[in-house]
Amino acid sequence: MYRSHSCGELRESHINQGVTLSGWVAKTRDKGFVVWIDLRDRDGITQLVFDADRTAPKLLEQARNLGREFVIQIKGTVIERASKNDNIPTGQIEILVEKLLVLNESKTPPFTIENETDGGEDLRMKYRYLDIRRNPVKNNLIFRSKVAMEVRKYLSEQEFIEVETPYLIKSTPEGARDFVVPSRMNEGQFYALPQSPQTFKQLLMVGGLDKYFQIVKCFRDEDLRADRQPEFTQIDCEMAFVEQEDILNTFEGLTKHLLKTIKDIDVANFPRMTYDEAMATYGNDKPDIRFGMEFGEMNEVTQHKEFKVFNDAELVVGIAVPGANTYTRKEIDKLIDWVKRPQVGALGMIYCRYNDDGSFKSSVDKFYNQEDLAKWADATGAKPGDLICILSGVTNKVRGQLSALRMELATRLGLRKNTEFAPLWVIDFPLLELDEETGHYHAMHHPFTSPKPGQLELLETDPGAVRANAYDLVLNGNEIGGGSIRIHDKETQATMFKHLGFTPEEAKAQFGFLMDAFQYGAPPHGGIAFGLDRLVAILGGQETIRDFIAFPKNNSGRDVMIDAPAAIDDAQLKELSLKLDIKKHEPRTLDQ
Amino acid sequence: MYRSHSCGELRESHINQGVTLSGWVAKTRDKGFVVWIDLRDRDGITQLVFDADRTAPKLLEQARNLGREFVIQIKGTVIERASKNDNIPTGQIEILVEKLLVLNESKTPPFTIENETDGGEDLRMKYRYLDIRRNPVKNNLIFRSKVAMEVRKYLSEQEFIEVETPYLIKSTPEGARDFVVPSRMNEGQFYALPQSPQTFKQLLMVGGLDKYFQIVKCFRDEDLRADRQPEFTQIDCEMAFVEQEDILNTFEGLTKHLLKTIKDIDVANFPRMTYDEAMATYGNDKPDIRFGMEFGEMNEVTQHKEFKVFNDAELVVGIAVPGANTYTRKEIDKLIDWVKRPQVGALGMIYCRYNDDGSFKSSVDKFYNQEDLAKWADATGAKPGDLICILSGVTNKVRGQLSALRMELATRLGLRKNTEFAPLWVIDFPLLELDEETGHYHAMHHPFTSPKPGQLELLETDPGAVRANAYDLVLNGNEIGGGSIRIHDKETQATMFKHLGFTPEEAKAQFGFLMDAFQYGAPPHGGIAFGLDRLVAILGGQETIRDFIAFPKNNSGRDVMIDAPAAIDDAQLKELSLKLDIKKHEPRTLDQ
Repeated sequence: MYRSHSCGELRESHINQGVTLSGWVAKTRDKGFVVWIDLRDRDGITQLVFDADRTAPKLLEQARNLGREFVIQIKGTVIERASKNDNIPTGQIEILVEKLLVLNESKTPPFTIENETDGGEDLRMKYRYLDIRRNPVKNNLIFRSKVAMEVRKYLSEQEFIEVETPYLIKSTPEGARDFVVPSRMNEGQFYALPQSPQTFKQLLMVGGLDKYFQIVKCFRDEDLRADRQPEFTQIDCEMAFVEQEDILNTFEGLTKHLLKTIKDIDVANFPRMTYDEAMATYGNDKPDIRFGMEFGEMNEVTQHKEFKVFNDAELVVGIAVPGANTYTRKEIDKLIDWVKRPQVGALGMIYCRYNDDGSFKSSVDKFYNQEDLAKWADATGAKPGDLICILSGVTNKVRGQLSALRMELATRLGLRKNTEFAPLWVIDFPLLELDEETGHYHAMHHPFTSPKPGQLELLETDPGAVRANAYDLVLNGNEIGGGSIRIHDKETQATMFKHLGFTPEEAKAQFGFLMDAFQYGAPPHGGIAFGLDRLVAILGGQETIRDFIAFPKNNSGRDVMIDAPAAIDDAQLKELSLKLDIKKHEPRTLDQ
Repeated sequence: MYRSHSCGELRESHINQGVTLSGWVAKTRDKGFVVWIDLRDRDGITQLVFDADRTAPKLLEQARNLGREFVIQIKGTVIERASKNDNIPTGQIEILVEKLLVLNESKTPPFTIENETDGGEDLRMKYRYLDIRRNPVKNNLIFRSKVAMEVRKYLSEQEFIEVETPYLIKSTPEGARDFVVPSRMNEGQFYALPQSPQTFKQLLMVGGLDKYFQIVKCFRDEDLRADRQPEFTQIDCEMAFVEQEDILNTFEGLTKHLLKTIKDIDVANFPRMTYDEAMATYGNDKPDIRFGMEFGEMNEVTQHKEFKVFNDAELVVGIAVPGANTYTRKEIDKLIDWVKRPQVGALGMIYCRYNDDGSFKSSVDKFYNQEDLAKWADATGAKPGDLICILSGVTNKVRGQLSALRMELATRLGLRKNTEFAPLWVIDFPLLELDEETGHYHAMHHPFTSPKPGQLELLETDPGAVRANAYDLVLNGNEIGGGSIRIHDKETQATMFKHLGFTPEEAKAQFGFLMDAFQYGAPPHGGIAFGLDRLVAILGGQETIRDFIAFPKNNSGRDVMIDAPAAIDDAQLKELSLKLDIKKHEPRTLDQ
């Protein structure tokens, strides 16, 4: 038996007990006559003490020679600490060590195993097993496990059944790029790894399994943006015989359960907002509603004067930034530079200070008088002390720009508090979205989403106007879940594929099994999927999903710890009936 | 709202209530003046009634025209059934229908959706979504979900943390064949899908995460034997600072919890048997101990006479088959044919009847007298009424042959009861096993398994004699779990790789990250993995894992429902820097 207790377990009530502990040497303080060691395991830290009075000289010497991260086992007696430490649960006691065994030595780690480490991202990833010993990473992984377990408990209690769907499925050109897996037994053919279990969960509904969920890995071979992973985890759910209302209620229940059990936070019923409303009010379909700064549309109160910039704009829209009339001219100029960066793309910004005395001072006083500006304040809900920031241009673009500014200012003003949770349903999404480059319509959610009742005909005349029974759950400015009521009859599904540019042959080749299934008594059904990585990060009050994944990949899709992907040998390729076809056009550097 | 109740919910207490139900038309009985319909959903079946007295003619007509598997919604009143059915929970009531809405029609299914279907395996797999509507399959999937949830509950209560390890890892030539995944972003390189998260869970232990588990898909590109799947599910577990005893106790606890919560069965502490003992007593390292017929070694009581077959044999070994002395000569001849089949491979079988009067009659009475035969009975534990079956030959082979005979006879005698559960730990496995073809040693468990303390040196002189701290959990003749205490220092791991035929360079290229990790304070650790598919099947009292997998693949690794794997288009191949290299040597038939 390696231990009688964990390193986080001993308290004053254990004083005088003999104990055995095992763990890592986290820190040694050597005062000559006395040596203290912090012994660490998953549960915490316990202080060991060796001193010239009470410890055999050989043992004291042994303690003195322990290096950082050595793995040791000790036997000793729990004693009261002379100087107590109220910051850690074991801070009232220490162990007077009687016996010490080195279980394994350690080389000096490449970075310090402490909450704030000196290791950069690359080093931490290469030695992820050491990084995981650090409290912030370890606690994130424990936190993730707890969230997943609470999801399972809640859904099981609601009579959901977890069903495992296959990982080796069929490649479909729709949506993002698939990872493919060559089949040795079926020469020249490939499996694909699922981007989501979408069609399988729908088949489970056709199969009468009704309330399904699964916490499942999904795969997308995309060029990785920051904080995207080629493999990610979904909480995937589907229900039969449901309307949108049933799904919203069920998963609002789940989210409340998580906030309660994980964060001990009670939240009221989630507000609901249509997609159109969200775009008009926040310029964004995943608005952060922890703070205000709602958009005020200002065409009426700006386009009656000689200011050409506003008069030419499709939309003039502003926000009132609370307490920001103290910004200096220089600070405001910087803000203007910020919105003009290519990532945001505004051409400029008009502003107006709402002075504490009730008067206004704008950057366009030449065109607008105090009475005009008072109407601007009305439109944006500004109060004395605020700064009104106004952008103008093409509606879609200017909304996005003002949304970016709103988020940036909220961050600067400390309004995005990571202890506050403001969930929101965004509903009535458009069924289709226009790809401006190709001029083609894409499914905004996915091709299995049902148009709202009675809107199928609109697909012919005004595809962009068709709304879907599709909904997103938004938390603190992030989409944490999204879903829809599905199509459940073959004809509608065929119509949908046609409008997405599939020939009947293509539709049959790729989704024939689903359309066949719809002919054998498919029930009405719908569902939702949550991104677990993101959900856990947000509940954990953080932004980066990578810190909540045990072994993440870098932006080139590499696992730098195990050095994957890697070349495979020719025999393996041959068995798979494949040949490499390396492009010769670019010289490659060593680290590519 | 599609329903107020499920189809399994209504009882006598609901009589006179108005209800709304939705489900599938399972069966229609049309007696002219009255039509009964069995309405089915996941929860059960409720009988609907329409009759000429109480039902509007149009509605009665509508009911009459419903086809099998139509999806309908009805509103009606719960009434008492005239002729009650005690076989189903809703058998006391029926619904007098007032309103009926067809939600979706159905073509006639290709097989009947009943417990005993007329659909063959192929048809059932092609229309798996219909197969899942059948109670046996549906209940298996629900059962699986319940088992997985109980596993998670138990391990979470024991402070295990579920950590997701990556699916896109690195290919290693050790063990079975990997499925590989070409990386588009890393030209000419491949990920591999994990055969198990073995190295990652060990790294989690090095990372101080201590008690880890995960229910996880694993992948092996093997030529599929019956009842093997290219993707399968493991309950994967690892603990730090443990000895074998800690692991056996923890997972004996888990198994008892499952038997109790899932089957309401209390089992005593699991017996333990060494590998050597299991091989000597049952000829098998996963013995079914629900019944006796233990091996009696008979060299001493057979090799003193002139019977050359026995005298030449390395091992003469027999079993006493209970009550089988009534087998006719013809039946015994058939048994002899059975053991001579190439799948078993025995050269013949000697038998001896233990008559009810205490006398013996053997097939070799020419050589052995009654006194000799009485000793045979002693050696095999035979009683009057039994039949002693004896095989002889090379030890390893004859044990396997007699084990096959023992299992076959037990099946014929009905001794393998699927309501009885007899778990058993088999311990002290050999570290290495000799590949008779190549003359090389392989790791019996895997290359990370630790030899027993003090046996490392034996690797040089007598590799086959080295025993490992490796253990299997056996249930009803199936290995349901297996694990070991791992190596946790670089030198031992390097020695191990050397003995398995790795050059130091190969070892470093493939497992360098693990050996590096061992240098930074790796704790002693060990673990176990259970095959969830098999575990669930056995707990469910069945043998075939396929019936417990929602969407299994066939023996060619194909999903015949979605028709995967499939060809991918040239653009996709090009992006992956791959070319097909189809072998031309064999003409292929259309359905390959």
